[in-house]
Amino acid sequence: MRHFRIVGGDEGGPRAGKLELPRGGEVCTPLFLPVATKMSVKTISSVEVRSTGTEAVITNGFLCSLQPGSDEIFSAGGMHTYMGWDGGLFSDSGGFQFIRKGFEPVVSDGGVRLRSPFDGSMTSLTPESVVEFHTMHGVDVGMVLDHCPKHDVGREELLLSSRLTVGWAKRSRMRIDEGLGDLSPAGPSSTPLFFAITQGGTDLKLRAENTAKLVDLGFDGYGIGGLSIGEKKEDTFRSLKASTDLLPVEKPRYFMGVGEPEDMIRSVKMGVDIFDSVYPTRNARHRSVFVGTGRENIRASGWKGMDGPIMEGCRCIACRSYSRGYIHHLFKAGEPLGQRLATIHNLTYIQELMKAVRNRILEGSYGFGLGTLVEMMFSA
Amino acid sequence: MRHFRIVGGDEGGPRAGKLELPRGGEVCTPLFLPVATKMSVKTISSVEVRSTGTEAVITNGFLCSLQPGSDEIFSAGGMHTYMGWDGGLFSDSGGFQFIRKGFEPVVSDGGVRLRSPFDGSMTSLTPESVVEFHTMHGVDVGMVLDHCPKHDVGREELLLSSRLTVGWAKRSRMRIDEGLGDLSPAGPSSTPLFFAITQGGTDLKLRAENTAKLVDLGFDGYGIGGLSIGEKKEDTFRSLKASTDLLPVEKPRYFMGVGEPEDMIRSVKMGVDIFDSVYPTRNARHRSVFVGTGRENIRASGWKGMDGPIMEGCRCIACRSYSRGYIHHLFKAGEPLGQRLATIHNLTYIQELMKAVRNRILEGSYGFGLGTLVEMMFSA
Repeated sequence: MRHFRIVGGDEGGPRAGKLELPRGGEVCTPLFLPVATKMSVKTISSVEVRSTGTEAVITNGFLCSLQPGSDEIFSAGGMHTYMGWDGGLFSDSGGFQFIRKGFEPVVSDGGVRLRSPFDGSMTSLTPESVVEFHTMHGVDVGMVLDHCPKHDVGREELLLSSRLTVGWAKRSRMRIDEGLGDLSPAGPSSTPLFFAITQGGTDLKLRAENTAKLVDLGFDGYGIGGLSIGEKKEDTFRSLKASTDLLPVEKPRYFMGVGEPEDMIRSVKMGVDIFDSVYPTRNARHRSVFVGTGRENIRASGWKGMDGPIMEGCRCIACRSYSRGYIHHLFKAGEPLGQRLATIHNLTYIQELMKAVRNRILEGSYGFGLGTLVEMMFSA
Repeated sequence: MRHFRIVGGDEGGPRAGKLELPRGGEVCTPLFLPVATKMSVKTISSVEVRSTGTEAVITNGFLCSLQPGSDEIFSAGGMHTYMGWDGGLFSDSGGFQFIRKGFEPVVSDGGVRLRSPFDGSMTSLTPESVVEFHTMHGVDVGMVLDHCPKHDVGREELLLSSRLTVGWAKRSRMRIDEGLGDLSPAGPSSTPLFFAITQGGTDLKLRAENTAKLVDLGFDGYGIGGLSIGEKKEDTFRSLKASTDLLPVEKPRYFMGVGEPEDMIRSVKMGVDIFDSVYPTRNARHRSVFVGTGRENIRASGWKGMDGPIMEGCRCIACRSYSRGYIHHLFKAGEPLGQRLATIHNLTYIQELMKAVRNRILEGSYGFGLGTLVEMMFSA
């Protein structure tokens, strides 16, 4: 079964595709996933998420498996029903969490033991438990367990991280092959697609080896992980290339944690299909909104009393209904509606950007930059 | 010009009416006004306010005149345009604020000098400036400046408060009679209706005298103020009666700061038409939602994993789309969407209650209690 089709562009370079979802329906690539860590895109409702042009979101399967718990999500019929979202639903394993403070992870070939961020108790993640909870959650795409090192670790740790990631992916593969249908809230025909995640830091040789090994295991798609976490930008893209050069062209490629417009455009040109990031939503909550090819600070004194929308031509709910002056006032007054309107705008901007990129690729023009794309975005 | 018509019920007792708004359109009474102090009903958008069945909201004219400032609101075309709200718009003078801490009010016959809550500078309010800023804000109903004493002050202070309230109302009346049309963002034909506010604490004689004096000045409607601020409930309703007994039947009566269902029902039976309160919205943000004839705590452990809506039969966005279990999860996870859904539910409940009261009155049955009204609310 081919769940991913390339419908335009170069197979190995900029490309436009369609990803069929196990529950039915499909999403278009290049695809940007807003982050709904705890099954809510912060400050906005699922109807509003849809209004931004979003086709799929990503949750954190690990955190959700602890709170509210996988049984509860399963009983509700899966994450889609639970959170009232009928679009595509990706879910991370939570591996990325390990590099954050406070989790005190202890890793082994069998998985990870770590401290629950909710009640401080010790809990564990195994490659098997991860694919199982993704299935119980009824997601469309589940990321398997990987080990994401910090960007500044030495070669020893990088090697360990890469070895663990491959070992865990193998065990994930075996568990998937045993069949997960019994665990699916929507029945055996709609088990998730599973993506493995390449690691190897910015060590190009290691990255390539790691990628090759994961490709051999034959997943439904591939995440490119462990990048954009503090390393130099040129290292980011060199490492990305080390992965994409080896990834099969017919499988979707997902560059994890990347959401800055320029970075996404550059990545698409290198053959990336999917992105996720808190960048647009976190910036919005911190009063920074996309305007033209840059960002503006809503709290800037120049915004006081300004007529007109956040960005001329934008068709988002915030821009259609409210002035810059009012939104500036809401932030100043600490009214929650402010963050919400900014979030809606930023996500709409990013999704319009994705659409413009896609259209450009379908037209066969690959020489796009942010400037030309922004012009396309908001012209009728 | 008659802007208020009684369309059902007893003139002096429970009654249903229609209030014509200066900008066009009308709102039905009994009417509940959600509080949008700083031109936003906390956590929800104006489209959502409308979806709850709300016909009019109330802002705080004083705070808005300081931030973002009356000039800015005027330039935007008035508060309606500024905040994207096309329904009825009441606005308080801010007099109630004086009993809060930190304002350090100094009162005189000319008005109040007090500390700005925004920058700590000294600012002033006069009877004239209040009717002027209401007009500049383009509101439908402006409350004139009154002096609201704390509930436990002695007779001397009550007398002073009552005297100031009457004196300020006289000056307001004079300023209104001079004509305010020049200041209206929508032109001279749509200056606000102005309501005076009766004071006198729980001293029935003083309350009656105060009411009579304000009635003599001939306002478009009357607020009953200085109650529900800590006094005993029987004193509240005795004092209310001292006012309603003297208020002209053909003018709308607005019992300020009252929003508990039982209190509103009792007040409607005494001839009150209009209410406002943060009760439903503040409770929602503090995880308390109306269910049946009482309230439930969303964070209660019994809510975990529960199927079904907050309240069976409720047609609000929250109840139509989300389970109790999910909303419990949102509160536990600290997701802003939780407070928002609870706010939408609580306001919908209160507005359905108002509709049920109104229908009951129009049918000619006045023996209604909360139980029968709740049954009416969510049937059919």
